Amino acid sequence: MSEARPFFSSRWVDVPDSVGWLPGHGLPQGFRAAGVAAGIKKESHPPRLDVGLMVSDEEATTSAARFTRSGTAAPPVLVTRDRARLDALRVVAVNSGNANAATGRPGMDEAARMQGAGAMMGRTAEDRVAVCSTGVIGVQLDGAKVVRGLLAAGKALRPDGDGDFQQAIMTTDLFEKRATLEVDLPGGTVRLSAQAKGAGMIQPSFATMLCFVQTDAVVAAETADLLLGVCVKRSFDRISVDGQLSTNDTAILQCSGASGVVVEPESESELIFGQALDALLRQLALDIARDGEGARRVGRVVVRGGHGPNVERTARAVANSPLVKTALYGGDPNWGRIVQAVGLALPDTAPLAVDVTIEGVQVCVAGSAVGHDADALAARVAGDEVEYAIGLPGDGFETEVFFSDLGYDYIKINAEYTT
Amino acid sequence: MSEARPFFSSRWVDVPDSVGWLPGHGLPQGFRAAGVAAGIKKESHPPRLDVGLMVSDEEATTSAARFTRSGTAAPPVLVTRDRARLDALRVVAVNSGNANAATGRPGMDEAARMQGAGAMMGRTAEDRVAVCSTGVIGVQLDGAKVVRGLLAAGKALRPDGDGDFQQAIMTTDLFEKRATLEVDLPGGTVRLSAQAKGAGMIQPSFATMLCFVQTDAVVAAETADLLLGVCVKRSFDRISVDGQLSTNDTAILQCSGASGVVVEPESESELIFGQALDALLRQLALDIARDGEGARRVGRVVVRGGHGPNVERTARAVANSPLVKTALYGGDPNWGRIVQAVGLALPDTAPLAVDVTIEGVQVCVAGSAVGHDADALAARVAGDEVEYAIGLPGDGFETEVFFSDLGYDYIKINAEYTT
Repeated sequence: MSEARPFFSSRWVDVPDSVGWLPGHGLPQGFRAAGVAAGIKKESHPPRLDVGLMVSDEEATTSAARFTRSGTAAPPVLVTRDRARLDALRVVAVNSGNANAATGRPGMDEAARMQGAGAMMGRTAEDRVAVCSTGVIGVQLDGAKVVRGLLAAGKALRPDGDGDFQQAIMTTDLFEKRATLEVDLPGGTVRLSAQAKGAGMIQPSFATMLCFVQTDAVVAAETADLLLGVCVKRSFDRISVDGQLSTNDTAILQCSGASGVVVEPESESELIFGQALDALLRQLALDIARDGEGARRVGRVVVRGGHGPNVERTARAVANSPLVKTALYGGDPNWGRIVQAVGLALPDTAPLAVDVTIEGVQVCVAGSAVGHDADALAARVAGDEVEYAIGLPGDGFETEVFFSDLGYDYIKINAEYTT
Repeated sequence: MSEARPFFSSRWVDVPDSVGWLPGHGLPQGFRAAGVAAGIKKESHPPRLDVGLMVSDEEATTSAARFTRSGTAAPPVLVTRDRARLDALRVVAVNSGNANAATGRPGMDEAARMQGAGAMMGRTAEDRVAVCSTGVIGVQLDGAKVVRGLLAAGKALRPDGDGDFQQAIMTTDLFEKRATLEVDLPGGTVRLSAQAKGAGMIQPSFATMLCFVQTDAVVAAETADLLLGVCVKRSFDRISVDGQLSTNDTAILQCSGASGVVVEPESESELIFGQALDALLRQLALDIARDGEGARRVGRVVVRGGHGPNVERTARAVANSPLVKTALYGGDPNWGRIVQAVGLALPDTAPLAVDVTIEGVQVCVAGSAVGHDADALAARVAGDEVEYAIGLPGDGFETEVFFSDLGYDYIKINAEYTT
């Protein structure tokens, strides 16, 4: 993704008038970041960045966080979740190249060491430090390398260090996923920035990748938690690359307050700030789906019907279907596979009156094929974004899931990405 | 699969001493079959067979059947399930190249026409005819072509017509899946034959592909139903190619009784016959996983633990994980992905004391990596069959799922198999 491509590139994101994109503008006031090469990723020339540090210099910083629901959640997730003040995180210490997952007691110790080193470099208490790891599972983390990396990163902290920080959190990502925005609020202008990584192992039950968000607005911790929760549900929780769930997914929002502009609960400010955060996270989520370890196209499935759990189950089944994903990759309007996925999601309901519409072209009504212009449909599914609408019997529930296609590059990346 | 490869090729199938493989021996007594080219599949030279007919000439024929649980089950499934005597099927009429699915009322009419044509050629009543279709979903079936095909097949019926019948039921299958066995029972020797198709869209919730089984033993319909049910549960219900569920899957057992050898309920005969049927269906299921639209290796995941639903959920999650499947394809002992899949299956249970053993090499104990001989492990996962054992906390439940890998050919076949 070159800088020439505007950040807000999807028709599925509503960008409020109050939001402006500031390419190359660095972090909001109060934040500094860095990324260094610490030798965790495999050797390469030049060495790849693999340890990142994000620091808010403001004592009054507030925060909110969301984590993977995985039953095999990694030590850094457990340490952050259980030993940090999630409403007051000043520092985020991250490494890539090793997930520190399935590493047991030694892994817990290494995550705690990372937390200690992060506290030292951020000049704050350990419980104000979040730690995150991403990479290979089941290999003990060389904590000494990470600590050395964090010490080096601490000396390299800069207000425009978000680019290096971004590089340091990436693994199989094919492009960067970050932005700096300005948001006009009634009380003044604030900045909002984010750096995300994620390409595979993506199906949030919640948060599902790493995403770090910073703002210089003054936001109460309760408000930050509410806004992050709502926006994660509408973004990272609605994408699927491969239906998998990482052991390490984490999303963190930090609010330095350095702009002095206050986002009051239940105010117009909160509404506008929330809309900006929503647009930011939805676009980042779509970028993750678009990256999707080699994806060519992104799909959106919208399901409507009278039974909430069935609507959700159907949307997930379509988004996770390797048959639907390969058809999306092939630019093939093979809607029979959608009907198949619906049938999988809703066993023992045949005959089921399902409607299917692709990019506005109705192809199936009440469970039965209907005539349509096949050439027009074929042209529409050849674009970058393809929308599938599914109607189940009844009314009252609607949901969406964004998903990437499944192509040769997914196989290449995953058959050759080794322990 | 050349004839040179023995039918029973997997270490995961127990073949009783009483069972012998009879390559090229045709159908059991009382059966005749045929396969013809009726122009349903795309044109090719020579034309591919796409209409099959299987007839038992014995009035007293008994049978049993299992069907997909898909909520979008196809008209042929609905017609057979609701309008045929499933305990007394004499005729099976099949077409490939078009699934007659998502075809609504016209599809029901065409399925009924197929049933009528099958009855005419089998000289029996319509309710003794099963109809099956497989192929593209969402395209109206040209019933006139199928009927003409069935009339031609009726004239071509032969006791050794199982090879043509097999060809007529295949779609993306890369090799045939059929066998003729002899089984020594206390009362005499009987024959057992089967023809299966299936390569993708495979995750039985039950039956999950097409499989037709014939025997000349005398078997009461209740006994046939019991044996087919048990054996399907241990075979087609335990494989996953891509976690999908076809709209058309059907398994049918027909017993002509022409040998005069009786399989009495709760007798030694029933036990031996059941073991033979079990071995036959398990090997066919493994062949489907091995075919797996381009699969290179077959995996078996065995899960043990103290909570039945969690054991089942875990086995399915591992077998359906595209990350585990690509690692299997790559010959990569990337067990971290197994831990990831377990975490997905069992949300909100972290930290979870999971054990993982691959081909006898213990790699993870109580959720934490353990030292092992990486070279020895790498060599073992390079074979044709790879076994993964997963231990969850507690005792008392165990299950298995067989699964194919995910490689380039799956993408090739599915991105280019068009409506």
